This record gives sequence, structure tokens and C-alpha cells, in this order.
Amino acid sequence: MDGEEREKLRLGFVGGGPGSLIGPIHVMASTMDQHFEIVAGTFSRDYEKTKEHAESLEIDLDRAYRDYKEMAEREAQRDDGIDMVAILSPNDNHVVASKAFLEEGIHVLCEKPLATNAQEAFYLSQFAKDKELMLATCYNYSGFPMIRQARAMVEKGNLGKIRMVNIEMPQSYLASNSPQSTGDSWRQDPERVGPSLILMDLATHLHHLMLYVSGLEVDEVLGETSTLVDGGLVDDNVSVLIRFKEGARGLLWTSASATGNEHGMRIRVFGDKASLDWFEEEPNHLIFKPLGKPHMTYAKGGPSLYEEGKRGTRMTWGHPEGYIEAFANIYSDIALFLEEEKKVSGFPDGEVGAESILFSEKVLESSSKGTWIKVENP
Amino acid sequence: MDGEEREKLRLGFVGGGPGSLIGPIHVMASTMDQHFEIVAGTFSRDYEKTKEHAESLEIDLDRAYRDYKEMAEREAQRDDGIDMVAILSPNDNHVVASKAFLEEGIHVLCEKPLATNAQEAFYLSQFAKDKELMLATCYNYSGFPMIRQARAMVEKGNLGKIRMVNIEMPQSYLASNSPQSTGDSWRQDPERVGPSLILMDLATHLHHLMLYVSGLEVDEVLGETSTLVDGGLVDDNVSVLIRFKEGARGLLWTSASATGNEHGMRIRVFGDKASLDWFEEEPNHLIFKPLGKPHMTYAKGGPSLYEEGKRGTRMTWGHPEGYIEAFANIYSDIALFLEEEKKVSGFPDGEVGAESILFSEKVLESSSKGTWIKVENP
Amino acid sequence: MDGEEREKLRLGFVGGGPGSLIGPIHVMASTMDQHFEIVAGTFSRDYEKTKEHAESLEIDLDRAYRDYKEMAEREAQRDDGIDMVAILSPNDNHVVASKAFLEEGIHVLCEKPLATNAQEAFYLSQFAKDKELMLATCYNYSGFPMIRQARAMVEKGNLGKIRMVNIEMPQSYLASNSPQSTGDSWRQDPERVGPSLILMDLATHLHHLMLYVSGLEVDEVLGETSTLVDGGLVDDNVSVLIRFKEGARGLLWTSASATGNEHGMRIRVFGDKASLDWFEEEPNHLIFKPLGKPHMTYAKGGPSLYEEGKRGTRMTWGHPEGYIEAFANIYSDIALFLEEEKKVSGFPDGEVGAESILFSEKVLESSSKGTWIKVENP
Amino acid sequence: MDGEEREKLRLGFVGGGPGSLIGPIHVMASTMDQHFEIVAGTFSRDYEKTKEHAESLEIDLDRAYRDYKEMAEREAQRDDGIDMVAILSPNDNHVVASKAFLEEGIHVLCEKPLATNAQEAFYLSQFAKDKELMLATCYNYSGFPMIRQARAMVEKGNLGKIRMVNIEMPQSYLASNSPQSTGDSWRQDPERVGPSLILMDLATHLHHLMLYVSGLEVDEVLGETSTLVDGGLVDDNVSVLIRFKEGARGLLWTSASATGNEHGMRIRVFGDKASLDWFEEEPNHLIFKPLGKPHMTYAKGGPSLYEEGKRGTRMTWGHPEGYIEAFANIYSDIALFLEEEKKVSGFPDGEVGAESILFSEKVLESSSKGTWIKVENP
Repeated sequence: MDGEEREKLRLGFVGGGPGSLIGPIHVMASTMDQHFEIVAGTFSRDYEKTKEHAESLEIDLDRAYRDYKEMAEREAQRDDGIDMVAILSPNDNHVVASKAFLEEGIHVLCEKPLATNAQEAFYLSQFAKDKELMLATCYNYSGFPMIRQARAMVEKGNLGKIRMVNIEMPQSYLASNSPQSTGDSWRQDPERVGPSLILMDLATHLHHLMLYVSGLEVDEVLGETSTLVDGGLVDDNVSVLIRFKEGARGLLWTSASATGNEHGMRIRVFGDKASLDWFEEEPNHLIFKPLGKPHMTYAKGGPSLYEEGKRGTRMTWGHPEGYIEAFANIYSDIALFLEEEKKVSGFPDGEVGAESILFSEKVLESSSKGTWIKVENP
Repeated sequence: MDGEEREKLRLGFVGGGPGSLIGPIHVMASTMDQHFEIVAGTFSRDYEKTKEHAESLEIDLDRAYRDYKEMAEREAQRDDGIDMVAILSPNDNHVVASKAFLEEGIHVLCEKPLATNAQEAFYLSQFAKDKELMLATCYNYSGFPMIRQARAMVEKGNLGKIRMVNIEMPQSYLASNSPQSTGDSWRQDPERVGPSLILMDLATHLHHLMLYVSGLEVDEVLGETSTLVDGGLVDDNVSVLIRFKEGARGLLWTSASATGNEHGMRIRVFGDKASLDWFEEEPNHLIFKPLGKPHMTYAKGGPSLYEEGKRGTRMTWGHPEGYIEAFANIYSDIALFLEEEKKVSGFPDGEVGAESILFSEKVLESSSKGTWIKVENP
Repeated sequence: MDGEEREKLRLGFVGGGPGSLIGPIHVMASTMDQHFEIVAGTFSRDYEKTKEHAESLEIDLDRAYRDYKEMAEREAQRDDGIDMVAILSPNDNHVVASKAFLEEGIHVLCEKPLATNAQEAFYLSQFAKDKELMLATCYNYSGFPMIRQARAMVEKGNLGKIRMVNIEMPQSYLASNSPQSTGDSWRQDPERVGPSLILMDLATHLHHLMLYVSGLEVDEVLGETSTLVDGGLVDDNVSVLIRFKEGARGLLWTSASATGNEHGMRIRVFGDKASLDWFEEEPNHLIFKPLGKPHMTYAKGGPSLYEEGKRGTRMTWGHPEGYIEAFANIYSDIALFLEEEKKVSGFPDGEVGAESILFSEKVLESSSKGTWIKVENP
Repeated sequence: MDGEEREKLRLGFVGGGPGSLIGPIHVMASTMDQHFEIVAGTFSRDYEKTKEHAESLEIDLDRAYRDYKEMAEREAQRDDGIDMVAILSPNDNHVVASKAFLEEGIHVLCEKPLATNAQEAFYLSQFAKDKELMLATCYNYSGFPMIRQARAMVEKGNLGKIRMVNIEMPQSYLASNSPQSTGDSWRQDPERVGPSLILMDLATHLHHLMLYVSGLEVDEVLGETSTLVDGGLVDDNVSVLIRFKEGARGLLWTSASATGNEHGMRIRVFGDKASLDWFEEEPNHLIFKPLGKPHMTYAKGGPSLYEEGKRGTRMTWGHPEGYIEAFANIYSDIALFLEEEKKVSGFPDGEVGAESILFSEKVLESSSKGTWIKVENP
């Protein structure tokens, strides 16, 4: 973010072409801080579309590829080959595409969920570790400065011992029982969605953010997934009771059928000294509620922040920043990590990506059995 | 609220004497609209305290009783005996006291919980029905005008078919592991609390409000109570998944260990046409979120309310209920001043009143001359 | 507010009868804390209406008077005559009525504005001083606990030297160019309004609150009154620049033509150490903004308040003042039910009370078994 | 924002080098939507710093210039010379630098204020018109989607006839009487600030936004500038009463000494049918308050927006966007204008930039004379 001299990291994309919701966000986020330049990609199954999209991004046409295999092989052969690939293709493509690049020695940032089941996700995470390559999962909400401030406040003991975490994200994208205009029609296709839409699409984000901020580990889950939309083809609501290993309790709720709601992501962490409250729709503020004292509002770019909460701020106090900037923070942290200028940790790696999927699988199991299920990494 | 001619209803109290949190609220609430006059009571186990309290309420001392039994019997014998009793004594006294008055043909308003177990509560309810007497439980949150508007909107179909209800009340009254200063030390005594504090003390309120607003019926529950305060003697947190008979799902959470939180009661109801959101800490507004349209904010005393939402409003739009208490503070300060019990200053005197008028005159002069005008008291 | 033994003060009313907006508020406010009893009054120019209203307030009919003169004289002759009168009659009656009671040695609380011009108001104020009687002006907004906390914070130097005060109240009561339904049609009659509606009706409140909180004195004003409603007969908007004697600056704005606004009263005070922000529509919170530190939110009944901010609070932290009115609604609904004037349903009966306990028992059973439990009434 | 094939516009910078607050924002904003590529610049008076900064932005070193004159001349000679320059250098450099590029046929986006006095600003605006070149002033707040929705709602008559505009921006950047850490120490140097800091630095933004949203024209002003910080060297507070040509009234307040405040920009527009309320610290929502109906909340990316309010949104409903995205919208609108793909109007041109300075000069004159001053374009 400062602007010292350096060569940019070379970035390629798999997916994210015309019609993609998240593609343009990755373009903006990866280039916002001048860390990455986009030099290669395969954006669509339709090669003509890939070429057109490459042109629009000013990518040389000989680096617009027919598929991820060709891209991985040929980029690996170039002296100026990509340093990292961002995998934005459909979920069932994540593991094979990621693996193809890792095999060629290329770092990978993969959209969530990392895989369609936990077993494959853990396998992929281990595969990257064995190759000593970076595998990151794009849990972008952890890029908000006030989320990082929240995590730092928990780590430094400002909240004391954590008792309870409440995280929720009631959304409305399936609230009307009609095809959505988001271009994401796969979300209503049970074949492509797999065993649970609501868990893989939304709950994985909450699982990650809950652990990222609280530092806790999940021990047992008891949850229920439901289809609340009349005639709905996929599940659209899930509530989960959580027992953490540290003894704290958790409550996680997310819905895609919460009529009229915008985004709705909110996390509250309660310790024995203080609690925290953060709402994604107003992300530049973090409420801190100490025992027996008035509530305090920490502001992005404002006074009394830890270094962790100061980082990732591009404009001074009172100037709101948002989703794209938070997304860009993930990219910039990865860049700092890859450039080894300084060790930055905290961006979500492959193991974290795998654990969220395991969590989802265990909630699904609990939902069908109606009882508590233990959550243990393989 | 109108003020037409009528004789007031005669009201008596059991409990609610010196040191009671809820006693003074019942006094204010019952007399605010000139419907009731308080004419009898037994306020404490200590008869001297009962008599003192009776005097402070201007109750004739021959209607200050030693216990509820004496009170029920003797009030029943009077021509001008009480029409209704309010039972504010400890929970384990609710059934016997209520029954004593019902047996004498006196209507009963009993604080929640109605009994310490459901069996006795249903018995008491049936007993009142058999006697054709009113037995009310004091679930006071259903008295907020915007809660009544919410209920009416659900009833009239504005939300469509209900899919989901989320209700919560994270409080902090047990958050510090120390005796509380509320005078309610019984809340940390497992003997007096019974099998669950959090359920009987807080969750009963949520259960009632959830059904009151949504009109749903509970079919199945899956919950967990926990003691999250280190060394806590009673449970202080509960999360409950709910299946309603109509197919909707519910999520209920309440805590007494949610450090730093104020009151926290919030109810959200999601239908297939719209959803509702109400927060008790800002009770004068109700958010309505119709599918595919901007959110709307209904305000107490404001436009477009149903009759149900208009009732129970004592001051016009924009004046928070809270206005009346502020108004009462002026009166009470004047009373303290006049009684010379202690010198209270700060209420606006005549000079202050004159200065505001002088200010107005000078502004008017400035407005006509288009320049600065000096303001000086005569 | 405590309830120690004492004799109540005797209160009479001039004005505030049927149709009055503020009359019922004065009744509720004066009796809420058991300091006053209402024993006399002249409520209307129509003596029949006065008598009816007196009956509704349980005032003896021989203390329902034809006019303020008769009332002042005859109350002064009684041994149990009123200690104080509240003058709620039209503005042009304030001085003569107040003076009549002061002459008889009776304290006066007069609605604002104290007079229709400053000269008479100062005269009246001096008249009361000479008689050593209390003359109070009913600037009720200074009764909010958080306003008193604000004043105390300024007094104790928490804000440092005051630089700037911004106070505003954009309302909408004249926003539509049509006769209002508030019963206050005099507000559109230039004859009765005098030289300025907006200044006398709204700006006087702001002037008082501004000085009450900031402790400053006005030196010079520069303002403009305007009629912004097409065809409006009275002024409906005023903006004022203020120079305080202490060197600070002020900005005051109020409007009756601010379409769509509720009440809008907000005061912000800026010192060299910190600033304050209070909004009447959410009166239970006060924002404190210290230089170089996070904002803090002081809450009615909450932690870290000065004694001044604690006084005048009737219910604990998190219960909005508004809670009492909701509580009163339960009582009033019960009264209407018992009086059979009209059938009111919806207040919680005994069965509802029993069901909440059953719910609690089933949750407890679920919690111990870790699985779903059916809920069925006996 | 869509991604169709095109060649990017070539952009150069004057100023905005190391230590600049606004430089990195211009880099992010100009490249976010892939409309511009940064290919030339002179970033600092120190040529070494300019070269280093050019490298960090991957600009060829032969296009890193010693000063704006060299840059204008040499870029004009190249076939691939810049299409537009962004002038980010100190205020007293704006006119000469802008003119140098305009003379060479290069479009100019100049930071506000366009000049240090209105006469030069109008001259520059006319100069660009004569050359048939684009001269834009960087009033970036007009880039927020909800501000554009607000403007559209006024234009389409949703508010009816406008009665009143209230705009304010109480900031705290000079609140402590000590050198600031923003790197903008020139803001406390009266020599470099000119006749008024508060008017040129902050009030010009408000003047522009007020007219942009309301569509009104200023007729007369009456204002006061003040130095409220003890020992302050520049003015830090201004309040202005405004009479619009259409008969409406305005109130403008901005401060740099409003201790504890963040950014504080808020605009409220009141018409005879409805009013609007927007707050820059929560820029993704716009409150609409129709006469006699509940308030409605329009959300960025949400339902029921006009085309104007939909444009400039990069992520769906509920995902917050902020200051940088709003800034990028100004750049993207300029790009669309220059590319003549479609006519986009509404970004602030040179005349608009000149008018804000004229407004400031007239307020200053009013402040010294203490009376109303007419505002007329030359």
C-alpha cells in the first residue's frame, strides 16, 4: 500500500469470465494495491469468450488458454510464468484445477468451498504442504480491518475467556421461489449443489469467520438444515448449536430464504471481560462492550486500534471502505507473504478451507440424526 | 386514555414492596391511564414494612394485610373489595396466592412465570376458567405498540406464510461472577431458582413474544442450557431450535452471561412475502422488509399503522415513549424542591422561560434586518 | 421514586381538558412518582366539560372551577388548597393566569412559552421572585436522564472548553398545507400565533436545551425565519447563527415543514477535549466522543453515569423508558376487558403462562437428552 | 464495469507522489474499472522521488517528468500520449498546470478547488470550453450510487418542490491544537491556505453536493467563518444561511474543529412531497421520507432504484462499497464520456468547480460584513 519499488506478482485466473459475479471483484481486488498484474487466464468453457475477456483485461492472447490443464502446463514453462493462480471456476472443479497448478509449482488461491467434500479438501491441503506451496481459500470476510481488530482484541485478552459466539447471515437470495437474476442458477440445481447448498455456500463463510475471530476450535455440533421455501429444491436455512473444545458455546444461523434481508452477516463474541459486535453491512465500526463500562465504538482508520486493525486501511478515519477493499486485503496479504518481505499470517489456508467443509458435513449428519456429532480433523 | 367518566377499578398487590425492582413499575403502569386505583396490599413478609409501604401509596392501613390469605378473605368480604390482585411475590408463591384470590372470586394478574412447573400452571389456568375469572400472566413486552403492529401485520397476511422466527435476548446480569446489586440475589440461589434460571426467568418471555407475534404453535424443541460463567451456580445461557406445527422453523437464544449487553431483546419474523424486525432497546420503530422492495420503518404514533398498532400510544409521532418519564422528572424535581427534602435545581424557572422568549424576539429582529442582533436581558 | 412515607403535594390544572394534546401527559407525568395528587382544575371554557373532565380525574366537583380567577381565589381560601397549579391554557392566557395564582401565594408551573413577549415574561418572573414563590416553565426535554448526564459532563469539564453547539429540530407538523388533525389548529392562525410560530412554538425549546446542556450564554444572534409551505399563513422554518459570550459559536435550526420527519431534536456540543451527541428519538443513549479515542455510548441506567444522569431512571439498564408505557398497556387492556366496555383480547392469559413453562421444561429435557423433544399441552 | 473489448485510456498524474493522502486513492480509483492505464507522471518536486514513484507504478522512466511543463509538451508529441491528466498538486498550482495540458489538447481532471479564486477558475473553465476539451473538478462525493439515486429522485419529482436543504460536515482534523499527522501540514499555514481554509477545503465539497443533489441555484448567502481552536492560525468553522433562487432555504455547516467527529458529511433535502437523508459514513443507504407514509430505506444494489442509482455498483445488495468505489465512479464516468460510448453527464465540470469557489468568496464577504451577499456568476 505504500508504493516502494518492486516487480509485481504475476497472476492468472481460472474462471471468472463474462457473467460471473465474483470475477470482476477478483480483478479489482487483486490489482487495487499494485501487488499483482493479471497476465494469463482461462475464463470460460467457450474459448472465444475466454479470448474476448482476455482482451478486455489486456492479457496477451497467447496467454488466453482453452482450459486449466493447458494453462498450468504452459505457464510453468515460461520464464515469466504466473506466480499464482486464482481458481474461480465451479465448485466441482476446484480440486482438480488447484492440483494441476500445484503440481507445476504454482501457488493457488481457490474460491470457497475448497472442495465438494472434506476428504478431498484435506487431501489438497496436504498436497500443497508437501510441495511447499501456498494454498489459500478465499474467505474474504476476514479481510475487513475491523474483523482483524476484533481478532487481535480476542488474542490480546481484551475479552477475557470466551464464553459464547453468535454468528449469523440471514440472506434473501432464494426468498422468492423463482429463478434468480444473479446468473447463479446453479444454486437451485440439486445436482450441482451437492448434499447442502446452505452449508457449502454460506455456512462455510461463517464457520471460518467464527474461528478466525474467536480463536476457538469446534468440538461438537448439533444442527438442522431445512428447506423453507415452498417447492424449494435445495436447503435454504440452517441453525447449529456448537460446543467448542474450550468449553464455550456457539450459535450459527444462516438462511437464503430470509425474505427482505440484505446480507446480514453479524458476529458477536462474548468473553468474561467484554464482548464484541460487528455487522458486515456497516463494516467500518466495531462495538466493544466492556463489563461495567460504556460501550466503545472502534472505527476503521480511527483511534486506539492495534496494528492488526490499522492494516488494510486505504483512506483515513470516517471515509467508508467496503467489500472490495476487504477482498483486496486478502490479495495484498498473500502478496506480502509470497514476496517474503514480511511474514503475514492470518489469511485462510487450505487446511482452514478443509475444516469448514468438514464442519458442514458434520452439521448435515447431525441434522439427519437429530443429535450431537463430534467434529475431528482426519 | 380518553378520559370519559367512569369509576376506577380497585387493585391490590401481593409483593412488590421496598427493594422490589418490579413493584414501582406496577404502581406506575397500573395508574398511568387512570383505570385502576390501588387500595389494598400485602407487600412484604415484614408487616411493619407492609404498613409503611401502604402509607406511601396512600392505602388505608386497614387494607394493609399480613399475608395473601388474610387479604383475599377480607377483601372478598368488603363491598368495595378489590376487583383484581397483582401477584408480584416470589415465583414459588404464585400458584397458592393466585388460587387464594380466585377462590374468593377476585381476578388475578400474576407475574411470570405463572408457576414453577407446567403442571401447576395448567391447573391454575383451568381453575380460573372454571371460576369464570380472569387469570392474566404479566408478559409485559406484548404491550409495546410496535409489537402489536407486528402481530397485526402477521395476522393480516402482510408477511405471507411464516418461514422462520428468530428471537433473542442476550443480557449481562450474571456476567460478572459476583453478587448482583439488583436486589435479586435469589437469581443465584439454585434452591430458589429451581431446575433452570435462564428458561424460567428469560426464555419464558421470549416464548410468549414469539408466539404472540408470529401466531405459530411449537411442535418440537431441541435445545441446550449451559452455565458459561466460571463457578456459576445456575444456568445462564440457552439456545433452542424450534419446529413449529405449521412447518416454520425457529431459533431462540437468551443469555444472562452476555457481558456488556444491555437488554438485547430482538424478534425477527420471516414470511414468504416480507419480514419484520423489532429491537426492544429502540422500541418505537418496526422494520418491515417486503420482498423486492425497499425496507420500510413503521413508527409508534406514525403513519400507516393498523388500529392495533395505534392503540397504547400516549404521545404523537416522534415522541419516544420515554417522553412521559422525562416529563415526570420535571414534576418530581419540582416536588422535591417544594417539599424541601433536598434542594434540587436545574428545572427551568421563570427567568429561563423569559430568556427563551427574548431570544425568539431577537432572532425575529435579526431576520427582518438581515444582520447580527445583540441579546441582553432587561 | 423511592416511596418513603409522605403526604402528596396538591396540584391543580388550568387547561388541558378534552382534546388537549398535552393535558393527559401532565396527568400521567405529575402522578407517576406519587408526588402529586390532582385535586382541582378548570379545564375548559365550557363549564360542563370542565365538570366532566374533573369527574374523570376523580376530582371533587366543588373543586371544578368556571375559570382561573375563581380557582385561584377559592383554592387560596381552603386549608387543603392546592400547593401548585399547572397552567396549560393557550399562550395568551399564561401571564394573567400565572399571576392570579402567584398573587394568592400558589406556586406555578406554566407551559412554554411563559408569555407572548419577553417583557411580560420577565415581569412575571420578577413578580414570582418578589413573592418568593416558585415559577417554573415546562421545558420538559431537560427531564431526560441522558440530557442531565450531558449537562453534568459539560459542567465537570469532560468536554473541556466549549467551542460549538449545534441544535436542531426539523419537524413535519405543518408539512402538508392542510388543516392538521392534532387539534392544534391555532398553530395556523396568525392572529393567535403572534409574530412567529416557529420561534415561540419550537425554537424556545431549543434555546432552553442548548443553554441547559452547554452552560453558555447567548451574546448575539443572526437568523432568518421563513414560510416554506406554499400558501402558509405562519412562519415554519428558522435558522440562527449564534455567538455565545464565552466565544463559542452556535447553530440552531428548527422547522415545522420538514416533510416526513418525526421529531428530530438533536443536540451536539463540541469542546476542545470531547464532544457529545444526543437524539431525542433514541433518548436512552448519549454518545461521547473524546479527542483521539473511540466513541463511547452512555446508556440510561447503565454504567459510569454521574449522579445527575442516574436520577430520573425508573427501570434498569436496557429497558427503554417506554417500558413503563408498554407495561401500562397491559394493565389498560385488562381494565378494558374487565370493564366490558369493549372486548380486548391479546393480553396473556393463564394458559399462555402455562405454555411458556411447558416450553421451558421441554427445552430442559432436550438439553439433557441432546435430541428433539415434542411439546404438547396436557 | 462490464468488460467489453476496448483500449484503455492513457492517464498521467501531476502530484500525488510519496506522502500524498489522495495520490493512492487516484491510482486505485482510476484503475479499478479497467478504463484507464497510468502511463506518465510528475509526482514530486524531487525528480528522484518522481522516478521512484513511477517505477512503483510500472511507468516507463522516460515518461517520468521533471515538471508539468515538460510533461505536457512531451506527452503531446507522442503518438501514444496521455488522453487525460489528473492534477493532484497543491492548490496554487492547479490553474497553471491545468492550462498547460489544455493548451496541448489534453483533457484535465483537477482536484478541488479548481483555483485559489473564482476569477481564475471561471477563466480556466472558459479556456477549456474554447478548446473543446474536458475540464473536470474532482468532487468525488457525487460518485456514491445513493447520492446519484438521491439526485434522480429529486429530478423525477419524487420530493415535489424543494423547500429546504441542510448539509453539514463536522470534522475533527484540526480539533487538537497540534501539528497533524496527516502529512497535510499546509492546512495550518495561513500563507498557503489563503483567505479561508474551511471554505476552500471543506465547504466547496458541500456546495457542490448540495447543488448536485437538489438541482437548486444559490441566490444569496449569509455566513460566518470562525477560528474556534485556541491559538488556531486558520479558520476552522463556518455556518451559512442560503437563499436559493427557487425560493428554498439552505443551511450549510462544516467544521475542522468538531472534536471526536469522524467525517460527518450528511445531506438532507426536504420537498413538499417527501424528504431525503444520506450520511456519508454509512453511504450504502438512503432514507426516503414521504409525507404521511412510513420511511423507506433505499440500499445500494437493492430494489426499486432508478438507473442512476444502479450505476456505479460493483457488488450485489448488502455488500458495502465505499469511498474508493465512489471515487472510481467519477473516473469511470469520465472514461465513458471521453470514449463517447454513451453520453454520461453529471460529473463535475470546470464551471461547477468555479462556482464553488465563488460561493466561498461570497460567504467570506458575508462573514466580514455580517449581512446577506448576492451570488452571481460573472
